[in-house]
Amino acid sequence: MFQKLKKVLVIYVGGTIGMQKNDDGVYSPVANTFLHKVKYHSEMHDADLAKQYFPHLKENELVLPVDSKTMILTIYEIVEYVPLLDSSNMGCKEWIRIAKDIERYYESYDGFIILHGTDTLAFTASALSFMLEGLRKPVIVTGSQIPIFETRSDAKDNFLSSLILASYGRVPEVCVFFASKLYRGNRVTKMSSDELEAFGSPNYNTLADVGIDVKFNDHYIRQVSPTRYFAPIIDLNPNVGILAFFPTMTCNMVNDHCLEAFLQPPVQGLVIQTYGAGNLPSSRKDLMDVLRNAVKRRILIVNVTQCSRGTVQADYETGKVLQDMGIILGADMTAEAAYTKLIFVLGLPELSFDTRVKLMKSDLRGEMTVNSKCSCR
Amino acid sequence: MFQKLKKVLVIYVGGTIGMQKNDDGVYSPVANTFLHKVKYHSEMHDADLAKQYFPHLKENELVLPVDSKTMILTIYEIVEYVPLLDSSNMGCKEWIRIAKDIERYYESYDGFIILHGTDTLAFTASALSFMLEGLRKPVIVTGSQIPIFETRSDAKDNFLSSLILASYGRVPEVCVFFASKLYRGNRVTKMSSDELEAFGSPNYNTLADVGIDVKFNDHYIRQVSPTRYFAPIIDLNPNVGILAFFPTMTCNMVNDHCLEAFLQPPVQGLVIQTYGAGNLPSSRKDLMDVLRNAVKRRILIVNVTQCSRGTVQADYETGKVLQDMGIILGADMTAEAAYTKLIFVLGLPELSFDTRVKLMKSDLRGEMTVNSKCSCR
Amino acid sequence: MFQKLKKVLVIYVGGTIGMQKNDDGVYSPVANTFLHKVKYHSEMHDADLAKQYFPHLKENELVLPVDSKTMILTIYEIVEYVPLLDSSNMGCKEWIRIAKDIERYYESYDGFIILHGTDTLAFTASALSFMLEGLRKPVIVTGSQIPIFETRSDAKDNFLSSLILASYGRVPEVCVFFASKLYRGNRVTKMSSDELEAFGSPNYNTLADVGIDVKFNDHYIRQVSPTRYFAPIIDLNPNVGILAFFPTMTCNMVNDHCLEAFLQPPVQGLVIQTYGAGNLPSSRKDLMDVLRNAVKRRILIVNVTQCSRGTVQADYETGKVLQDMGIILGADMTAEAAYTKLIFVLGLPELSFDTRVKLMKSDLRGEMTVNSKCSCR
Amino acid sequence: MFQKLKKVLVIYVGGTIGMQKNDDGVYSPVANTFLHKVKYHSEMHDADLAKQYFPHLKENELVLPVDSKTMILTIYEIVEYVPLLDSSNMGCKEWIRIAKDIERYYESYDGFIILHGTDTLAFTASALSFMLEGLRKPVIVTGSQIPIFETRSDAKDNFLSSLILASYGRVPEVCVFFASKLYRGNRVTKMSSDELEAFGSPNYNTLADVGIDVKFNDHYIRQVSPTRYFAPIIDLNPNVGILAFFPTMTCNMVNDHCLEAFLQPPVQGLVIQTYGAGNLPSSRKDLMDVLRNAVKRRILIVNVTQCSRGTVQADYETGKVLQDMGIILGADMTAEAAYTKLIFVLGLPELSFDTRVKLMKSDLRGEMTVNSKCSCR
Repeated sequence: MFQKLKKVLVIYVGGTIGMQKNDDGVYSPVANTFLHKVKYHSEMHDADLAKQYFPHLKENELVLPVDSKTMILTIYEIVEYVPLLDSSNMGCKEWIRIAKDIERYYESYDGFIILHGTDTLAFTASALSFMLEGLRKPVIVTGSQIPIFETRSDAKDNFLSSLILASYGRVPEVCVFFASKLYRGNRVTKMSSDELEAFGSPNYNTLADVGIDVKFNDHYIRQVSPTRYFAPIIDLNPNVGILAFFPTMTCNMVNDHCLEAFLQPPVQGLVIQTYGAGNLPSSRKDLMDVLRNAVKRRILIVNVTQCSRGTVQADYETGKVLQDMGIILGADMTAEAAYTKLIFVLGLPELSFDTRVKLMKSDLRGEMTVNSKCSCR
Repeated sequence: MFQKLKKVLVIYVGGTIGMQKNDDGVYSPVANTFLHKVKYHSEMHDADLAKQYFPHLKENELVLPVDSKTMILTIYEIVEYVPLLDSSNMGCKEWIRIAKDIERYYESYDGFIILHGTDTLAFTASALSFMLEGLRKPVIVTGSQIPIFETRSDAKDNFLSSLILASYGRVPEVCVFFASKLYRGNRVTKMSSDELEAFGSPNYNTLADVGIDVKFNDHYIRQVSPTRYFAPIIDLNPNVGILAFFPTMTCNMVNDHCLEAFLQPPVQGLVIQTYGAGNLPSSRKDLMDVLRNAVKRRILIVNVTQCSRGTVQADYETGKVLQDMGIILGADMTAEAAYTKLIFVLGLPELSFDTRVKLMKSDLRGEMTVNSKCSCR
Repeated sequence: MFQKLKKVLVIYVGGTIGMQKNDDGVYSPVANTFLHKVKYHSEMHDADLAKQYFPHLKENELVLPVDSKTMILTIYEIVEYVPLLDSSNMGCKEWIRIAKDIERYYESYDGFIILHGTDTLAFTASALSFMLEGLRKPVIVTGSQIPIFETRSDAKDNFLSSLILASYGRVPEVCVFFASKLYRGNRVTKMSSDELEAFGSPNYNTLADVGIDVKFNDHYIRQVSPTRYFAPIIDLNPNVGILAFFPTMTCNMVNDHCLEAFLQPPVQGLVIQTYGAGNLPSSRKDLMDVLRNAVKRRILIVNVTQCSRGTVQADYETGKVLQDMGIILGADMTAEAAYTKLIFVLGLPELSFDTRVKLMKSDLRGEMTVNSKCSCR
Repeated sequence: MFQKLKKVLVIYVGGTIGMQKNDDGVYSPVANTFLHKVKYHSEMHDADLAKQYFPHLKENELVLPVDSKTMILTIYEIVEYVPLLDSSNMGCKEWIRIAKDIERYYESYDGFIILHGTDTLAFTASALSFMLEGLRKPVIVTGSQIPIFETRSDAKDNFLSSLILASYGRVPEVCVFFASKLYRGNRVTKMSSDELEAFGSPNYNTLADVGIDVKFNDHYIRQVSPTRYFAPIIDLNPNVGILAFFPTMTCNMVNDHCLEAFLQPPVQGLVIQTYGAGNLPSSRKDLMDVLRNAVKRRILIVNVTQCSRGTVQADYETGKVLQDMGIILGADMTAEAAYTKLIFVLGLPELSFDTRVKLMKSDLRGEMTVNSKCSCR
């Protein structure tokens, strides 16, 4: 009947996937309904199989129909956060909670699924990727653009495929699954507010593509050293910001107080989203001074591009000056990855400033291409 | 020999297209070299034709070889800004200068090309689109990712195709040409810092696609009312900012002084880049109060998405609250368009706050899809 | 509860969507199971609503949950072909059967859905588009890459979205729906044998894109003249073939008997898939003679490209010769469209050869861009 | 001045890249003009450098400006075929000629460029990939959609980038370069008849992407065993065809003589382009018998999909039957690759039928993914 048994833990944090329209016609979360909805769908819960083979399942344990390709049978347990968390309310505290939950149940399950709102999903996936040091099991963050309660919805596809991928266990990373694609968690960004293909991984290949079959892109899946063990790090430092430059700041500097505000205590780290390949007006002494002084005050500043794709470099005069003054080249990191990495690196206890700078420049979890400019020599 | 004669003015503002590597190996602009480079390329200047038919051309007037499809002969004049302007130094003053130059020479030319650095090109194109009220001739902003002086470069393609499209005169808009595609200027954003296809128009179709032939997408080209005349508006208000939210601002609000800084004088307008379809944590009374108070102080706040594609809506509880407190739904405007539109609308003299709000909500130059959610009724 | 009532007829012809794995591990169709499967899914059949409001529904009539956007309630009836037809067995006889079924039930329903195997779906959709003269209601051909009985499947999405689009009634064409996109039926081709996004419309825009909302691309939807009435044409002529050229035929002509075989009785029409923009070696007198003689024998020969995208033209010496000898330029028609159009045009009774040639050169149902090369004059 | 000297041989076979419009307005090749055109473009020939350092260059030897990234100086020699060959006239004889030319000059050059018409370029690149056994230097086949003599053209970009990539020497394969992408030669197909991005590699990643920098995708570049030496194989067997099925053949079989013609002597090998994942109507005994008998007569039949992308499999009843009767599953080979592989394998002297079948099923030059269906176990 089946050849392998896998167990997956589903942590339902919140998000569109479980929302319903209220009387004002706007979507809001409704507690204690997701499990019920899933339970009465034969694709998501094989009640006959459950009754026959697993009569003692808990109320929140469901049985995925046997996978016809692998003959894997997956039992998954759904745990719902109380209250459900809105995507726009997610932050350090919530990331720590999720990481702790994964830590607590790590040995008991073969994989983990985080059901999350799409709005800040990329932040959460990035943060978890740094926190879950030594991870050897799949943690798949997913959600949907349309609630599972609607007639037409991407929820079931995203949820089912995530369950199947988690049960396969071939990608020991924090991943994001959305719209038939499995991405590395710290490489994604929300690309579209209204399409079902809501996420993209602008600077890194997908880890798996789901069509009639699942195609794993093995070259791109990160291999964890066998000597490392799972040891989540749950100290985070929230004193970090993101600031994109725009012409009236870089040119007229009418808004110089804005930049300065972003570099005042308690801020200890800042992601600056510069133009193109990492440029700011180097001739603008005042602007450069504000940044230089901040570095001197040991604020970690990381330079990433405000373009959707690509990497920052020191090829242009303007970009080179930033590097020379101690601003960290963020290579091809997304803003989400650079930002959560700062939160993580600044949270690590008892490190020198230089060590933190070095960590920021290193590829910790596959989040950046250290030598992104493939040499042609 | 040729059937029509067209004249195009090329305003060379600055940018990578005319840069050269200096001794440190970084790119910087070199004055008075672009014209020379172009002049000795037979594709860009037909010296024989010039000598034979136009013996009295000025030093900076060149002759494009006759277009074999249309038999148009184009004479173009290159005017170089002194000094050349770095892309990251462009702002209101520079936009006004360009608009004035177009105004001054409007009657003498059939089309205009602005050679510009790619970093802030989308801002400049958006700004010009609002300023050039009643435009009936093509203004094409272009540039390149690789200088024209390099062996391998996208400069000649972008420049030549822009010249040809300007001479055709079929798109009476401020456009951006890049990598075989003609876009509406206020719809583009720089998508890639390192690919030759550097720009994209995430929420609007291309205006023309250049392959073996040029295909104009006529449905998407804006038609100017024949009763309007060209009347550039050159009052701009630079007291405008852009701010994207991120979890430690929306969640822990450790950085609330940052948001407040962006809403202090002299700021009169702010583009907020919210999550997904326009969401912020509506349950966060403090955050909502900061925004509400700013609206009361008559700061124009426009809500656009921080996703690359899509539109903001009031479908979610969190999004609806923002709309109710007077924050303007930016629909599917890019951040660049929303920001330069604020600069433009706040620069218009002697309007009431409500009129400015109304203008922000209107589609002025094809920059937003007013009813972006195509009804299904 | 609901504001409009719509009725849709679902004709289940066959295909992967209703297949199951047999004991050999290969997929084959199983009769009388699709309806049952659909009936017990609450997204596809609202049993409560049915019981309360429509107690007298037939066994094969189901009720789609009320569409929350439009408040449309859709009742759909599933008719299954006996036996179910394999995609690779579809041809003229089956297309006539489907067309007749639509004709018979045309007045009783607001829209039609054809559930079909994906392999020859593009042929069937093209054929129906020509046969259903004067169509004013949506006919949506769809299917799936994975059976509806599998845990993970694209079947429900494709089916549900097709039902919703059919109920909206805004696209009065023969369409194909697949993977969140609605295409014109005679513009699609099967692009991928193993991805869920199996179809593409290489030379024509989508008619609608399904994301969180449905976006109709109104410019691209064909408007039927209000003076035309629905009058299906069911005479087809199957004596038509498709032949793609390849080097050992065009160069060494070792296979000249192959080309001749394709031009022998009973063949009356042939689609030739030539190189690039419509090229064959014009210098090869023998090859040209075979084609010229066939035209003289009044075989209708249509020239389309073997490229996935693009159009045939007479820009090259080799292409021009073909046109001069009476071979019809197929413009940007897909091979599927050109082929079924030949079957249709050759089936029309009592027309002269020249009239048929003229019809082949005309845009009958939006299948070709008559002036595909947008002039630049 | 430069650090390395590389030599590249450019074999100008023919094609659009060197064509000019004749008096009828159609393109045709003009001999002895390409070299002249290239010579007077400073990007393609550095005359000063040539004069200073290489005063004894032959008339047809040109000097590429020094590559600023690698400090490589490339001398390239252009050899033009007399007469120039039209793309639609290319076949076995011409492929043998090119292979012999590469063999003859193999030791004297670091890389080779074949300038070729785009129409049959994919066939030529595939054929060469099989013939050039043990290749350890880049052979890049390229061309253009617009002649180099036109004002606006993709010719210079394609040619220059190919020269640079050939000089780098990092891809020891038969490649195709087009529109900023380097592909494996036996994986490409002409995708578009009218866009500048004319080629695609539907089932395999690009080998390099050219943007501001060149990014090599090292995982995808084939590594030649160091023990193999270069030994071109120039015996080809042209008795091979390609035939795509269509409904009136698979259904009504009115055209059964067509299929039979493709299986008559002298044909010894046939690529059949079947539906979807490799399907034909297995219930059609007559059709199956024609194929079965052909296999018995030792005709090598390879089954590939007529879809643009994807692979053939034996998952469906209809596909499995074909495999069981001895038809070779072509996996994800393009029709061009399968066809030229048959020409190559049937040309190898003194092999048994079974050995040839085995070779067809093996991955010889990276042309097929032997286990394309990435297992999920």
